[in-house]
Amino acid sequence: MHNMKPNTRKNEIIKTAATLFKDKGYSAVTMRDIAKAMGIKAASLYNHINSKQDILKAIIISLAEEFTLGMETIKASQVNSIEKLKQIISMHINITSRNKAGMATLNNDWMHLEDQLEYYLKLRVNYEDNLRDIIRQGILNNEILNDNLEVLLFSLLSTLRSLYIWIPLEDNLNEIELSQSLSNVLINGIKN
Amino acid sequence: MHNMKPNTRKNEIIKTAATLFKDKGYSAVTMRDIAKAMGIKAASLYNHINSKQDILKAIIISLAEEFTLGMETIKASQVNSIEKLKQIISMHINITSRNKAGMATLNNDWMHLEDQLEYYLKLRVNYEDNLRDIIRQGILNNEILNDNLEVLLFSLLSTLRSLYIWIPLEDNLNEIELSQSLSNVLINGIKN
Repeated sequence: MHNMKPNTRKNEIIKTAATLFKDKGYSAVTMRDIAKAMGIKAASLYNHINSKQDILKAIIISLAEEFTLGMETIKASQVNSIEKLKQIISMHINITSRNKAGMATLNNDWMHLEDQLEYYLKLRVNYEDNLRDIIRQGILNNEILNDNLEVLLFSLLSTLRSLYIWIPLEDNLNEIELSQSLSNVLINGIKN
Repeated sequence: MHNMKPNTRKNEIIKTAATLFKDKGYSAVTMRDIAKAMGIKAASLYNHINSKQDILKAIIISLAEEFTLGMETIKASQVNSIEKLKQIISMHINITSRNKAGMATLNNDWMHLEDQLEYYLKLRVNYEDNLRDIIRQGILNNEILNDNLEVLLFSLLSTLRSLYIWIPLEDNLNEIELSQSLSNVLINGIKN
């Protein structure tokens, strides 16, 4: 039966593993733990996936590529810098709400990537560079305050990267409302 | 020799362990790794500390108590809410710059606490409650925008809790300048 839906079963393994990685950390989770959580034998896991490392790659690299693609699209779009930042905030809320456990794994366990560590770091640096460029352009256009660029950048990134800790799951989320509220806080500040 | 300075040697163990926990995660580090990094025998470690768990407790609980004490002091002080938030931002910069590896351990490995997990979580909830109270009071006084309180709270906390990732070490930090710049971003926003 499961051989007819290899991707479904594989996705189920990835989803289960992400939840375990989130709760206990990648290093503390074994293939046996993942099999147990799915109610199958450890040997059956290997019909679908080669190693725990392959699961980690599947989780982190696919998310990193999704963010990269979104960022490139937004950066190239013909809107002003503040609008781009709002779209980036919305993208983070959207991707994170669909992948809470995966985002926890990305944040906590990226350093356990092996042969794809370098590629992941390249995507990450590239993402930060693109966000920095958007902010710098906004400063040049007098849309964004000419304050410490690195402080602006990391304050934004910190909040966006921590979203997985506190936003509701997709089904319980008013995505538009949260996007507006978070954009408001991050862009306009909190002072009355 | 080291028996004459038990605290110094113990602090050295804690500092070395925090750096290893930061780089590899608590689960992946052994007492043997810690001894090796210090250039001593694993058996010697046990003259100073009972277990890896005791090191984790020493790192996380002392930081959590330092934040708790700082927050209680600031909350009780006779200044307005915006000023209290600025003082909280300064406190995070100050404690974090002196304990970068410890803050990484607190953020990534708090869930590996055993008998002090409950106590840690109590301090953490208490800290968030106090910060929420300060923001709520600021909204009541028309100092802070009456937007989504939880979004304000977690946006602030996310940035403060991520400081260890990007601020310079104590010796290379202009603490006053960073405090002003970060307060500006978090309180006044980034829009020109």
